[in-house]
Amino acid sequence: MGYRFDRDTAVTALGGGRYGAALSADWAIGGALHGGYLLAVACQAALADDAHPDLLAVAANYLRSPRPGPAEAVVERTRTGRRIGYARVLLTQSGEPVLDAVVTTGTVPDEAPQWTELSTPDHPAVEESLSMEGGSTPDGRPVPMAELREVRLDPSMPFVSGRFDGPPRVAGWMRFADGRDPDPLAMAFFVDALPPVTFAQGRFGWVPTVQLSMMVRARPAPGWCWITMRGGMEAGGFLDEEVEVWDSAGRLVAQGRQLALAPRPT
Amino acid sequence: MGYRFDRDTAVTALGGGRYGAALSADWAIGGALHGGYLLAVACQAALADDAHPDLLAVAANYLRSPRPGPAEAVVERTRTGRRIGYARVLLTQSGEPVLDAVVTTGTVPDEAPQWTELSTPDHPAVEESLSMEGGSTPDGRPVPMAELREVRLDPSMPFVSGRFDGPPRVAGWMRFADGRDPDPLAMAFFVDALPPVTFAQGRFGWVPTVQLSMMVRARPAPGWCWITMRGGMEAGGFLDEEVEVWDSAGRLVAQGRQLALAPRPT
Repeated sequence: MGYRFDRDTAVTALGGGRYGAALSADWAIGGALHGGYLLAVACQAALADDAHPDLLAVAANYLRSPRPGPAEAVVERTRTGRRIGYARVLLTQSGEPVLDAVVTTGTVPDEAPQWTELSTPDHPAVEESLSMEGGSTPDGRPVPMAELREVRLDPSMPFVSGRFDGPPRVAGWMRFADGRDPDPLAMAFFVDALPPVTFAQGRFGWVPTVQLSMMVRARPAPGWCWITMRGGMEAGGFLDEEVEVWDSAGRLVAQGRQLALAPRPT
Repeated sequence: MGYRFDRDTAVTALGGGRYGAALSADWAIGGALHGGYLLAVACQAALADDAHPDLLAVAANYLRSPRPGPAEAVVERTRTGRRIGYARVLLTQSGEPVLDAVVTTGTVPDEAPQWTELSTPDHPAVEESLSMEGGSTPDGRPVPMAELREVRLDPSMPFVSGRFDGPPRVAGWMRFADGRDPDPLAMAFFVDALPPVTFAQGRFGWVPTVQLSMMVRARPAPGWCWITMRGGMEAGGFLDEEVEVWDSAGRLVAQGRQLALAPRPT
């Protein structure tokens, strides 16, 4: 049994650094498996026989959109240090590479920052935020994943009222629907699990990730996480999204950035 | 002949996806080869026989500090798409992994952004900026690399006047000393070539990169680049540095972030 996120990202050792995974159709948006879910599967494989307990950081190239079903992760531990472990993970399906990641493991810090330039962003209370309608995307694609994670959007964002003249920013609360608390591994999913910033511009097409990097900065407290995503620039059909994840104690727990393809006009 | 950066990052095809490199002692700071230089060598290997001309993005784990001398890059092209190429590169020396990278290639955009939330930062003119003393670090480590790239630091930063109460930020102009103009590949070096943000705190020890990711957003104009680095948070002995590179035309040309180890007290 256990929680869905753990069950659906679990891997089975096959020997020789290979791990079997079963990609679940439930972690999909509009027919494509969610990129953060795939990243978590790759990180599970890196952590499976690792000397270190936590995901510290991961960066990945997104090569193909896999189908639900069996997949295999090939893990090469490039260095196991006293404090940090390094691995590369190639997630494949039917022999084709799907996601290629460099993973860093260690023990995520639990103490207060020595210094920080980042202050907890202003945010509404969970109960004042807007439950995201789960059934489908604004352009009509079904979102099975909506059953598995709960989102409460910042009600002050213009796009939630149908105005698309706001900045390319999306913010909201998130948690797993079955009560699983956030942890370092979950951050691999959380950094990419809000709608893309182009929703704020009224552009609802798919925004495929090209490369994503993230780092876990503190062990998340139980409960909801407050996630902010902002677009920096779109040029030549590429855009970037910056993400920060803050836990229920107001602590920065993860930072990430992705390069993605701009959505096609729908 | 040619420019030093090109010569010293050049690779020779050895067949089977292997490329030989000669790591030059001149790209060192305090006895350690510069991380951005090593990253550029890995990217050269990815680009050597690639269908795409430009570096678009790279993310890497930094495993060991190599010595000057021969090294080998093993390149696996995980996918070659029409628009984007993906590769993984493992840089090794004497059979030991040194740097493990996922590389993305394509054609860097040349047109104006469709939208941007980032405005050219205020900066002093090059001639009003401070030439960085090249011979050694503040704690006395020699910097051979100082001969190869020129830096003009923002004179408004408190630490350049010996005051260490400013924010963990470092900004300055940079160019190659031999007149080589910046290009997408050079961005792999530029994103990590200013002093670490901890210099602003009067902490001059080595700040080893654990993981670095960067993306090239526009083709740089010739001339100096303005580079800004800011620290976000330090906790549990890890800190992050965010970097932006702006070209002489005031355009954002690269963005990056690294997770690094905090400097040991010196």
